[in-house]
Amino acid sequence: MLMRSGRINTNTIMRLRRIAYAVLVSRWAPDARERLETAALDLFVANGYDQTTVAQIADRAGLNRATFFRYFADKREVLFGGEDVLASLFGDAIRGASPDATLTECLQAALAAAGAAMTPQQRAKAAQRVLVVAANTEVQERGLLKHARMAASISAALCARGADELTARLGAEVGMLAFRVAVERWMKCGDDGSFALHAAAAVSDLQVRAAGLDSPSRPSA
Amino acid sequence: MLMRSGRINTNTIMRLRRIAYAVLVSRWAPDARERLETAALDLFVANGYDQTTVAQIADRAGLNRATFFRYFADKREVLFGGEDVLASLFGDAIRGASPDATLTECLQAALAAAGAAMTPQQRAKAAQRVLVVAANTEVQERGLLKHARMAASISAALCARGADELTARLGAEVGMLAFRVAVERWMKCGDDGSFALHAAAAVSDLQVRAAGLDSPSRPSA
Repeated sequence: MLMRSGRINTNTIMRLRRIAYAVLVSRWAPDARERLETAALDLFVANGYDQTTVAQIADRAGLNRATFFRYFADKREVLFGGEDVLASLFGDAIRGASPDATLTECLQAALAAAGAAMTPQQRAKAAQRVLVVAANTEVQERGLLKHARMAASISAALCARGADELTARLGAEVGMLAFRVAVERWMKCGDDGSFALHAAAAVSDLQVRAAGLDSPSRPSA
Repeated sequence: MLMRSGRINTNTIMRLRRIAYAVLVSRWAPDARERLETAALDLFVANGYDQTTVAQIADRAGLNRATFFRYFADKREVLFGGEDVLASLFGDAIRGASPDATLTECLQAALAAAGAAMTPQQRAKAAQRVLVVAANTEVQERGLLKHARMAASISAALCARGADELTARLGAEVGMLAFRVAVERWMKCGDDGSFALHAAAAVSDLQVRAAGLDSPSRPSA
């Protein structure tokens, strides 16, 4: 139609502009994923998870809907991109641990590797995420699925080191509980305390308790 | 309209019949929950979870859609009714355990209490459920939410006995892993082996491994 009429009407110009903008932004926005995550969290906290649309998230991030779906399969995924990264970090760290490392040391290595991703900026996001997750069952379910996949990554890496299946699965559960506890302590701690310290303490606290499962469940008076 | 015309038309008769039927069925179907669960599993396995509607489930169970929603909030819930029952059984058993019971003994008591619900009939249903869950992420997510609630029930009961929070959370994770392992072994086992035996063995196997978390993660050659 452009060719036939020899004229470019306003609608066509606007459409071309939008396409050019999308192309430029997607090329100039190597941080698109992070911008979408930040925008989503801000909107979820301000307006509620259910009330926020993907279009609104993309708009706030200065991107379009198609770009959103290039990074995230659905609205819930934007909250859990970090989990996939952590699952890989955990697995790599365990596979790379010293050949004579104990299971506890393997878990320490896994959580220490996560430390690099736990910046003060991430802590602020984590606090927003806690609010969103607490308010929405559907979001909790997705979070649990991601946690199960992180546990599977730990378990597979422990099996690859030669641990028997049951030991590997136990290690994964203990490792994931240590991770959750470390994140909680790191978020509560007002100063910029390093995540690695909380992680090491959490693994160690759990190891001591795991060793004592055969002790009385009621502390003696 | 019935009163004014003095006549009852065919539609009205059919409507009254449907209402009467629903009232009778809901009075005569104290096993409605179980019939809905059985119908749902059969249809999910035969036709796929996504392809099955609530109306089809209710119809196969000889009930109506409204009755379905009296028992289950949505289509996914029909797969996980047993989990809510188990969460209560776990909590009650732990609260009722002997005052000097160890944590391992508390978990043994919890899983033993679940044994009553693990009949050969339930085992057949569990096998169907594994197929449905494996094929559907949305269903997996709901299953994980139910597991998290069962863990919370164990953890709360251990706290009520005086265990510190971290010990209680670890106990819950170990207990839930033992439960999953026991169910897997019970389902694999061809004969009618009692669930209680598998449960006791699973808790004990995990306790031994938990005590050795500080041992080398790689078995010596």
